[in-house]
Amino acid sequence: MPDPSSIADLPTPSLLVERPVFDANVAAMAAVHPGPALRPHVKAFKSTALAGELAAVGHHHFCAATIREVEGMAAAGLGTDLLLANEVLDARRLGALVEQGHRVTTAVDSEETVRAAARGGVREVLVDVEVGMPRCGCDSADAGRIADLARVAGLEVRGVMGYEGHLMMTSADKKAGAVEAAMARLLAAHDVVGGDIISAGGTGTYAVNVWATEIQAGSYCLLDTDYASLDSPFEIAVSVLGTIISVSAKGWAVADAGLKAFGMDHGNPTWPGGELFYCSDEHTTLLDPDGVLRVGDRVRLHPGHLDPTVARHEQFWVVDGDDVVDCWPIDLRHW
Amino acid sequence: MPDPSSIADLPTPSLLVERPVFDANVAAMAAVHPGPALRPHVKAFKSTALAGELAAVGHHHFCAATIREVEGMAAAGLGTDLLLANEVLDARRLGALVEQGHRVTTAVDSEETVRAAARGGVREVLVDVEVGMPRCGCDSADAGRIADLARVAGLEVRGVMGYEGHLMMTSADKKAGAVEAAMARLLAAHDVVGGDIISAGGTGTYAVNVWATEIQAGSYCLLDTDYASLDSPFEIAVSVLGTIISVSAKGWAVADAGLKAFGMDHGNPTWPGGELFYCSDEHTTLLDPDGVLRVGDRVRLHPGHLDPTVARHEQFWVVDGDDVVDCWPIDLRHW
Repeated sequence: MPDPSSIADLPTPSLLVERPVFDANVAAMAAVHPGPALRPHVKAFKSTALAGELAAVGHHHFCAATIREVEGMAAAGLGTDLLLANEVLDARRLGALVEQGHRVTTAVDSEETVRAAARGGVREVLVDVEVGMPRCGCDSADAGRIADLARVAGLEVRGVMGYEGHLMMTSADKKAGAVEAAMARLLAAHDVVGGDIISAGGTGTYAVNVWATEIQAGSYCLLDTDYASLDSPFEIAVSVLGTIISVSAKGWAVADAGLKAFGMDHGNPTWPGGELFYCSDEHTTLLDPDGVLRVGDRVRLHPGHLDPTVARHEQFWVVDGDDVVDCWPIDLRHW
Repeated sequence: MPDPSSIADLPTPSLLVERPVFDANVAAMAAVHPGPALRPHVKAFKSTALAGELAAVGHHHFCAATIREVEGMAAAGLGTDLLLANEVLDARRLGALVEQGHRVTTAVDSEETVRAAARGGVREVLVDVEVGMPRCGCDSADAGRIADLARVAGLEVRGVMGYEGHLMMTSADKKAGAVEAAMARLLAAHDVVGGDIISAGGTGTYAVNVWATEIQAGSYCLLDTDYASLDSPFEIAVSVLGTIISVSAKGWAVADAGLKAFGMDHGNPTWPGGELFYCSDEHTTLLDPDGVLRVGDRVRLHPGHLDPTVARHEQFWVVDGDDVVDCWPIDLRHW
């Protein structure tokens, strides 16, 4: 690994984080949801170094989507209160962390996942409730039964969680009402389940979800073009740096950052300098009708979807202007 | 890393290769393009262990899309004749391999890339010619000038390459004619450039491209749902194994293999068992109107695009029926 001090020295493709923008995003969220009112979701950035930056401003409880993420956070000394906001059927790796003294809570939504948690050595759970998005979570009316099963199995039930992911991009005029209706289902479950925690929300609903005791947002600190379309104080701090390796007199230029450097489920990345034609594995063809780009130029492309983009890279290069000021390993990738 | 002997013991998500299907695909290609008539493209599978299987049937010349791929192949003892079928502006890592005794050739399509190759210590090049796809490659009429520049810079010009990637999915009745027209541009360049090599083609055109001296195909050995739509002897050998972690009485079930386990640029993966509803980061929701799926069931999902799917995983688990018979590390990821 080189030790570049300038963006010009970075290999490409490289994933960049603009330090001032990142700091502003983190501060904006902490002003609304300080300390444990935010449970940052590490799935968005998969980096214990970045998580450490959030801990430094007071967020010490984290959530995760994979066992590997939980393990990495614990190993990095960030295991004060880790929530696996997901169901697992083999919880032994989580139980091993509990055994080592880390506080690990997992989501359960069925008899099978309750049994798996108990069998694996996990001691604390949240009942995951489906609040309108067709994914995991039990029916609100079934949450009490799941909590009872968990308690019978010897598990501590800390409360409930429910992710209103289907409302992240809802238009601003309808969002608060839609989130209230979704949270009504979670609160009804909580009335029966009990516990201190009502965990929900994300970058798209953090401002209107006033019912959750903690918000599970992660993307806010780096953002992407999808979330940037929302009216929020957050700005895009992340980009993929590419080098122009080929220029055609026919009106296009080719950067060496292709779709293997991006999550493509929200469509193509965006090139602030003009129109992006298409991506292939290791190339992105940019339209350059006026022949402005030269071989060797650097371009920055903004990902449509942060989380799967981050998961394709080995590190964030943290930059301030043209200076490389830090390198954060993306150490929570894979499963 | 566990050492599972049965698919039932694999963690999920896991990337699977069906050994008998892989072997049949490899044999089918080798029958048409034996030995050096095929230059397998490691970008498709990013694994030196898999490349070793292709070397075992006689393919000892490989091509690659990234410097990391070339380095890994050389380190694995597969450096007999490595082509970086891509342009680079910093060729020093390639030059270091040449210095170590590996044969490394790189593509050039401009004065800048010629200079970079010479400066970096590469000694052999192919002139990359644009044959209809708006990406890298010089104009056919400019190929002689590029070759001259390369020779003046002290480089050996081994021939030409051109990738007719825009024709991979062309309908069968039009494909041969379209490939012939594209290859006419490459052959015209070759007439001026000289050299022994005319490198072109891919999994979608291997059967009709009779003008290239070697075919750059890689996807054929594993395939994906996109290439499977073509009429070819190749079948899908690759899938992502997921576990059903949640089932809803409302008619869906959730697998723990989400879009972070797939390349999504060709759209959603395919579930042979029924209709796939949607993918999120770590989940895929499957429609299950008849309530067939149970928590704990295993499902296999076929990727739409092989190459970026492979790049998301740490290893292939090679299976034969329900037995895990091998593990091939995906060691050529990143850049």
